[in-house]
Amino acid sequence: MQKDTKYRSLFKALSWRLSGTVATMIIVFILVGRVSVAAIVGGFEMITKFLLYFIHERVWDKVKIGKKDITPFVLWFTGLSGSGKSTLAESVYKKLKRSGYRIEHLDGDKVRSIFPKTGFSKEERNNHIRRVGFLASMLEKNGVMVTASFISPYEETRQFVRGLCQNLILTYVFAPLEVCEKRDPKGMYKKARAGQIKNFTGIDDAYQAPENPEIIVDTNKETVEESCQKVIAYLKNKRYI
Amino acid sequence: MQKDTKYRSLFKALSWRLSGTVATMIIVFILVGRVSVAAIVGGFEMITKFLLYFIHERVWDKVKIGKKDITPFVLWFTGLSGSGKSTLAESVYKKLKRSGYRIEHLDGDKVRSIFPKTGFSKEERNNHIRRVGFLASMLEKNGVMVTASFISPYEETRQFVRGLCQNLILTYVFAPLEVCEKRDPKGMYKKARAGQIKNFTGIDDAYQAPENPEIIVDTNKETVEESCQKVIAYLKNKRYI
Repeated sequence: MQKDTKYRSLFKALSWRLSGTVATMIIVFILVGRVSVAAIVGGFEMITKFLLYFIHERVWDKVKIGKKDITPFVLWFTGLSGSGKSTLAESVYKKLKRSGYRIEHLDGDKVRSIFPKTGFSKEERNNHIRRVGFLASMLEKNGVMVTASFISPYEETRQFVRGLCQNLILTYVFAPLEVCEKRDPKGMYKKARAGQIKNFTGIDDAYQAPENPEIIVDTNKETVEESCQKVIAYLKNKRYI
Repeated sequence: MQKDTKYRSLFKALSWRLSGTVATMIIVFILVGRVSVAAIVGGFEMITKFLLYFIHERVWDKVKIGKKDITPFVLWFTGLSGSGKSTLAESVYKKLKRSGYRIEHLDGDKVRSIFPKTGFSKEERNNHIRRVGFLASMLEKNGVMVTASFISPYEETRQFVRGLCQNLILTYVFAPLEVCEKRDPKGMYKKARAGQIKNFTGIDDAYQAPENPEIIVDTNKETVEESCQKVIAYLKNKRYI
């Protein structure tokens, strides 16, 4: 984060005015051939342009052409383990980051790695999601866009998060359970089936499909790039980007 | 948050160039008295100034005069209940906010009101502070300054938070326990003495004074304004603001 001080703006304005006026004087001298005329034109220009520039700035301050309001948002990805949430969320995050937006990515596994004691019971999951939702809402409030990928299986908690945020965009990352279990990127389904993990979403804990998601992607039928384009299209359509 | 599109910059540059050149042409015409000379000067100026402006911008991009790096930080206030943490933190927060900095204030009581089930046992307190520390570090990472006022009684947890943040500035808000208990703004000490609250810091739970705080204020001897000035002076001295 950098900030231009008043001195910098002043130095810059002076340096520009000097360059500009010297250039004008040279042009006049070449064309008219008299130093005195060039000097007088330069002097008048120096004074008038300073004023003119000021007025120009004030007028443009009122004109809204080409001004774009940036509204931060929380782009929340929910879905089963192995549905492709994180992959999709990271893909969208990277695209927006590359476009120069202030954006933060929050990922279920990464946040849990900082707080290893967070459990998987319904209450602990709920509290975990509420806290992450609060974190996301604080970033949003401070002008930072957020992508968040969390299984977040319960409708009630997602509604709580929606209540905290100004602009929650819920993306339901859908893939049939069989497909997710087949993918099983972290071997979690296997462990859950073997009874080594309790309360695993989809196996011995429910996943409540979102009632009113803003976006639905089907990672069984779409490529990551296609799903990503769908999300980006939504953001563009709603004038977020 | 607003952003100027390329179109706006282009329109503005054109509108400025036109105003500037017309002004030059009028000056030349008044002084030289010939429309043709004024037109030729204007034409040359139009082309050369466009180039000159571009070069001027590129050169200034390399010059660092008057550029100020803003390093975000987490200003963490620790101390007993009733020590004056929140009052001081809010006072510093408002001062910085008024100066135009992006800043967020996190307060123990306010965060707890969103998560009413957070307990007061050593473990629950610790987890709570760790999570708030993570939240603060995420804001800091995204260019937002943070003031945080939490009793945060344990050295170990404060060290954990320090580890998460890039620039943690720990302010120890000191006041003798008797003084805090006398102030008792929320009637908590009374309840703790009556046994209605368990694990209350200073009564039946320890407060570990910080080992290496960056700033120490004594709210028993200083006014809020004096303590606030001390904190601001530290920030200025370390070139944070």
